[in-house]
Amino acid sequence: MESMMIWMPIAMAVLGLIYMWIKQSWVMKQDAGDGKMKEISDYIYEGALAFLSAEYKLLAIFVVIVSVALAAVSFIVPTTHILIVVAFIFGAVFSAFAGNIGMKIATKTNVRTTQAAKTSLPNALKVSFGGGTVMGLGVAGLAVLGLTAFFIFFFWYFMGSEWTSTMDMTIVLETLAGFSLGAESIALFARVGGGIYTKAADVGADLVGKVEAGIPEDDPRNPATIADNVGDNVGDVAGMGADLFGSYVATVLAAMVLGNYVIKDMGGSIADKFGGIGPILLPMAIAGAGIIISIIGTLLVKIKDNSAKESQVMGALNKGNWTSIILVALSCYGLVTWMLPETMKMEFFGEGLQEISSLRVFGATIVGLIVGAVISSVTEYYTGLGKKPILKIVQQSSTGAGTNIIAGLATGMISTFPSVLLFAGAIWASYAFAGFYGVALAASAMMATTAMQLAIDAFGPISDNAGGIAEMSEQEPIVRERTDILDSVGNTTAATGKGFAIASAALTSLALFAAYVTFTGIDGINIFKAPVLAMLFVGGMVPVVFSALAMNAVGKAAMEMVQEVRRQFRDIAGIMEGTGKPEYDKCVAISTKASLKEMMLPGLLTIGFPLIIAFAPLAFGMDKLAIAEMLGGYMAGVTVSGVLWAIFQNNAGGAWDNAKKSFEAGVEIDGEMTYKGSEAHKAAVTGDTVGDPFKDTSGPSMNILIKLTCLIGLVIAPILGGHTIDENDTTEIVEIEVVSNYEGISGGEDLNNKTETTVEMLTNDVNGIVTANVEIRKTVNGKTTVTTETFTGTEDEVRDQLKDVEGIKIKIKDKN
Amino acid sequence: MESMMIWMPIAMAVLGLIYMWIKQSWVMKQDAGDGKMKEISDYIYEGALAFLSAEYKLLAIFVVIVSVALAAVSFIVPTTHILIVVAFIFGAVFSAFAGNIGMKIATKTNVRTTQAAKTSLPNALKVSFGGGTVMGLGVAGLAVLGLTAFFIFFFWYFMGSEWTSTMDMTIVLETLAGFSLGAESIALFARVGGGIYTKAADVGADLVGKVEAGIPEDDPRNPATIADNVGDNVGDVAGMGADLFGSYVATVLAAMVLGNYVIKDMGGSIADKFGGIGPILLPMAIAGAGIIISIIGTLLVKIKDNSAKESQVMGALNKGNWTSIILVALSCYGLVTWMLPETMKMEFFGEGLQEISSLRVFGATIVGLIVGAVISSVTEYYTGLGKKPILKIVQQSSTGAGTNIIAGLATGMISTFPSVLLFAGAIWASYAFAGFYGVALAASAMMATTAMQLAIDAFGPISDNAGGIAEMSEQEPIVRERTDILDSVGNTTAATGKGFAIASAALTSLALFAAYVTFTGIDGINIFKAPVLAMLFVGGMVPVVFSALAMNAVGKAAMEMVQEVRRQFRDIAGIMEGTGKPEYDKCVAISTKASLKEMMLPGLLTIGFPLIIAFAPLAFGMDKLAIAEMLGGYMAGVTVSGVLWAIFQNNAGGAWDNAKKSFEAGVEIDGEMTYKGSEAHKAAVTGDTVGDPFKDTSGPSMNILIKLTCLIGLVIAPILGGHTIDENDTTEIVEIEVVSNYEGISGGEDLNNKTETTVEMLTNDVNGIVTANVEIRKTVNGKTTVTTETFTGTEDEVRDQLKDVEGIKIKIKDKN
Repeated sequence: MESMMIWMPIAMAVLGLIYMWIKQSWVMKQDAGDGKMKEISDYIYEGALAFLSAEYKLLAIFVVIVSVALAAVSFIVPTTHILIVVAFIFGAVFSAFAGNIGMKIATKTNVRTTQAAKTSLPNALKVSFGGGTVMGLGVAGLAVLGLTAFFIFFFWYFMGSEWTSTMDMTIVLETLAGFSLGAESIALFARVGGGIYTKAADVGADLVGKVEAGIPEDDPRNPATIADNVGDNVGDVAGMGADLFGSYVATVLAAMVLGNYVIKDMGGSIADKFGGIGPILLPMAIAGAGIIISIIGTLLVKIKDNSAKESQVMGALNKGNWTSIILVALSCYGLVTWMLPETMKMEFFGEGLQEISSLRVFGATIVGLIVGAVISSVTEYYTGLGKKPILKIVQQSSTGAGTNIIAGLATGMISTFPSVLLFAGAIWASYAFAGFYGVALAASAMMATTAMQLAIDAFGPISDNAGGIAEMSEQEPIVRERTDILDSVGNTTAATGKGFAIASAALTSLALFAAYVTFTGIDGINIFKAPVLAMLFVGGMVPVVFSALAMNAVGKAAMEMVQEVRRQFRDIAGIMEGTGKPEYDKCVAISTKASLKEMMLPGLLTIGFPLIIAFAPLAFGMDKLAIAEMLGGYMAGVTVSGVLWAIFQNNAGGAWDNAKKSFEAGVEIDGEMTYKGSEAHKAAVTGDTVGDPFKDTSGPSMNILIKLTCLIGLVIAPILGGHTIDENDTTEIVEIEVVSNYEGISGGEDLNNKTETTVEMLTNDVNGIVTANVEIRKTVNGKTTVTTETFTGTEDEVRDQLKDVEGIKIKIKDKN
Repeated sequence: MESMMIWMPIAMAVLGLIYMWIKQSWVMKQDAGDGKMKEISDYIYEGALAFLSAEYKLLAIFVVIVSVALAAVSFIVPTTHILIVVAFIFGAVFSAFAGNIGMKIATKTNVRTTQAAKTSLPNALKVSFGGGTVMGLGVAGLAVLGLTAFFIFFFWYFMGSEWTSTMDMTIVLETLAGFSLGAESIALFARVGGGIYTKAADVGADLVGKVEAGIPEDDPRNPATIADNVGDNVGDVAGMGADLFGSYVATVLAAMVLGNYVIKDMGGSIADKFGGIGPILLPMAIAGAGIIISIIGTLLVKIKDNSAKESQVMGALNKGNWTSIILVALSCYGLVTWMLPETMKMEFFGEGLQEISSLRVFGATIVGLIVGAVISSVTEYYTGLGKKPILKIVQQSSTGAGTNIIAGLATGMISTFPSVLLFAGAIWASYAFAGFYGVALAASAMMATTAMQLAIDAFGPISDNAGGIAEMSEQEPIVRERTDILDSVGNTTAATGKGFAIASAALTSLALFAAYVTFTGIDGINIFKAPVLAMLFVGGMVPVVFSALAMNAVGKAAMEMVQEVRRQFRDIAGIMEGTGKPEYDKCVAISTKASLKEMMLPGLLTIGFPLIIAFAPLAFGMDKLAIAEMLGGYMAGVTVSGVLWAIFQNNAGGAWDNAKKSFEAGVEIDGEMTYKGSEAHKAAVTGDTVGDPFKDTSGPSMNILIKLTCLIGLVIAPILGGHTIDENDTTEIVEIEVVSNYEGISGGEDLNNKTETTVEMLTNDVNGIVTANVEIRKTVNGKTTVTTETFTGTEDEVRDQLKDVEGIKIKIKDKN
């Protein structure tokens, strides 16, 4: 059985997809309601489909360009294989397909949820959560299927399905990185594009509809209302799906890369029952188990009581969620002890090789699960209704929009305190348990329940849409009340889901970062080197500028929408009376066009910066390892700053949103009950306007920004002289020579005064270029100074140069 | 003459202070106007004095506590001398004194400016800029005087005024760091306390006075108006003065520390005409020259035309500023070529020793001057009236406060793009020119014109106050018009001054950071080590949380002020009719008390975090060098994130402010002229409310936060095992032993298969503790793995432990 373990994740993924298909058929069989409801639902479906089609067309061009570039690179750089292009394309297609599945089922489930809400709340939950489950399993199933299938294929193609060497496996995994890069690139555009779309439509609908025309939310007379509902689907559903698809793939990939290095640390090969690749298979196995566990989790989400309130619905979700987390912990224990050698050797930076028991790897996975759970609570504290920070923002709303804004900003900023301490503690702990392999497995364990998390996340916007359809199709108030309960719970899960997404992105980036350092073969990233420090600054700046671009994009797109809605109110006769029909499609078209246009610049920034940092100095002939270290500094800057700005923006946005919502039920300010429509409420609405792009556009994009940056680094790594010091390299060591030139006391070695030179000559099989690393250890009065020099060129050139190294006699001896 | 060079900076400082005294007498001799004006001016003076007295009382307690702690450390850590306490206290006192001089002259100059404005605009500029000049020279003179005097004293005390060794000089400079720490600690509280004060009073005066009671700015009926004007003096004048005092001292100190290491790199001593300490004296000499140059610069600031507009006033300031920058460049050339050896050896990290000409050091100073000039232009672009970003915010105000806020935030965020690229370029270039010594000298050259910069900065709030006095004492409109011209120019210079302060703080922090790494003797700061990376995250979070605390503090203090002003309007009969007299002093007292209370928590955060990071792991017995590296990661995190948040907050705040001001002259929105009182203007006022704490409280505090963090690191450095690997150390090398254990081919060395062990035993003179650094270089098939281990204990213990090192024969030989 053990030797078949490589097929297990695929089997689980297929099982998950089959279950998804069953669930999907069940959802589709549900009653889709009357004609009016169907009509509205169709509008939303078509709008969302129109956006996705337009987006995918644009992305297809992008994929072609990148594919050509990657192909060119694979011809120039011998360690990069052309198959990376195939992996990249499949990654992009799978990611788009996953987003598409989610969006389709969400737009089909919304109207069925409305219809189910006519009968009872338990039914409404069953349908809406069923839709979420389809989406969750679709994303997770495709991710595991794609990644594992490509791994098996490349493992066969490059290694004949048998362990040969770390170097060969590195080529397998580097080629596999193309799949992840494809997925994450699509995720970036889906998140940013979707985020701009949804907020532009939202702001447009609110500013003109609610504020200027004075009609309620989701009123069918509002021309932007369909676009607004479409936005929920393309932003919160398709965007989120692509985001987590990317995270999932990147996390598992990073853990596999680091697993490969565990094997290297253990001497280059291990004898286990899994063909010697247990540490590489483990993260995939955890992901596979996670799919089945998520199915079990979703089965537990149900309520019986038709008069249930938010807390009971939340309780049902929590039951499913916690059960799946506990099951993941158990399965991690089983898989770790089964698949890993009982004790392993692992390289700890600066501490050399250490022997650790496999149980410590299990410890690291527990760290990941704890971080996932705690970050959700932290997020809920800072953004939850009735919690202290929200009440404070509510109080500050009484003195106007200015103080409301300050309070919201401050809340988002303060929330970085526990979050960052948690991440810092997690990095430390998981590393202490099992090195960077531990960090990567912590992330893998946390992401194992992705399907469950997505089900919980996606049910929110579905319920939101269902409420909108109920309003637009003028249903009984009880229907809206029921969907409102689900929607309210969905808002909380949306906030905690964002916390989960940041935590996973932070850990994944670290794992990718570690994989990068190992791939390039640099000693580490020393920020005491001025160019590295400079790049740390530049990296820190990119998330800030990215956020600003995304926010400005929302502003621009919203302005266009506002003009269009105003025009329709002015030009279409009888629109306010309900006799004239708004041109919903024009608003949908504007949002689509504007968001696609505006997502270009932030995307370019993300992809362009690391490429410039890598290739501009390369063009000037700078040392490759120095460039690799600079790029590492850039990646660290993006990660640290990106995590901070993600937490800040998501939580500030969530807090403003719920501060505004607090007024709906009424809040006590200075001893007086205050409601919607009060001056304080207006101030809170202003805060929410600011918070919208924070929490739905720029904030969630940070995750992808940092992951994609690290992935680009990983794909560039082989170009930056990766592997040149790897033992299994195509580079061959010609000779190592130690020449000692003892000075001082004649007749004996004076160990306190001597000069010792080591020359390590490396030649590259492919183009015959020789690199000589010269290390001069000069000891004067017992104090040793080490200087290093590197010479590159043809073998003759290097030998010539070596002769000129001052003050040292060099014996040149031939290889054999 | 050359041997007397050490006295030159003191002579220049004394000259500067004499000129200050002459200028001060001239200002004080100017007419202080009529009874009403004098009365108001006295209120402001007394309010400011009351705040400073209360603040200094509190800070005295702080200074006592820190002094006791430092004294305790100096008893425990042999490399720290008790004199550091004396230096610390003097640093604190000098800083407070400098702030005090500035505040006093500012509050005396304001009314004289009003009076001078009655005669002509040129006179008003002469008086107000005269006051600024007094402040600038006071700060710069005291800084150079204090630092140089202590250096001369310590140089005599520890070294007998003659060069002995790098190690002895390190003790001199470490003790001198106490002066800088004292100055920067006071600066932190002055900036934060003053910032909270000024904004609490401002918001209180505006919210109740302008908005609720509908009376104009600076109306004498407003009880908070005196507090508001006091705030300008304690925040913008005393706070800014203490800030730049701290920057100035820290910059010069850092350059001196790095100059000491230049001497070390050159073999431990150099023969020059300056007693062998030319590279250490150079930064002080540049500072000394800067004082005289600043005096020349201030003499050029004058206008003749009574009908001059803002641009002419700005032109006069620019003339003085640019002249002094050019003169600094010339003097840098002269001093560098005169004081430094023609060619120097400098250690470049990872590249070994390099020979560089002294002209490259001059190149680095030019980089500093360019950065100072460019950053001011960048700041002006993003915050200047009539510039594109401001016009955009104005446009976005038409759709409400929400879009105004988004536009302002985005502007601040985008502005990090050119600023950070500029800093990154400056780090790179100045390092490429002359290593970290170059970075420090770039900062020194930039800061050389501090006196001039402060004069330009301080004249703004003086003119603002003068306008307030004109309003309160009900002068002719022409008086207010004239002071308004000066005030408007002052707003621009305030924004560019903030850019200058950030640039100087960024470069200074880098120099301190480099000094720290060199002090602790660590190899660098490798963020690929998980604990270091974790601390990079934590460091990145601190400026964000600090900003939030400062903003919340303003909110709380402002709330108390609002309540008090409301109470006075309610309780004091005839206040609105001008017959009842407001109780100004109560408002002053509230602002004072609240700001002092609220500055504690941010202060604690700044000081507490580095201490916890250093001492908590120390208590658990963690390796000192590992802790030093972690603390370095923390410092880097604070610096990178602090610089970003400083730029973001200062520029967003400045942009909102000027967007609001744009409405005063009228702006065109959608083809329509819009003025004060419009809906768009109200939205802009909301933006300004948010921007106020950004630009006057949390934003400017970032500078001090990052500098203080790096200084604390520098002072802690000796505790973290600094010097243990320094050649001139009190630690003595007992023995170095190389044991090679050749395996393989008998009868000959097999260089491809061998194990070589180096044991370096170090013993500390003071407590006899021995450290053995064991390096094992194991070569198998030509591939070398290096592992290192460290043993610490008594000599016998260490020898015992060494015997157990696996697989290696160790010969133990005695020292002699």
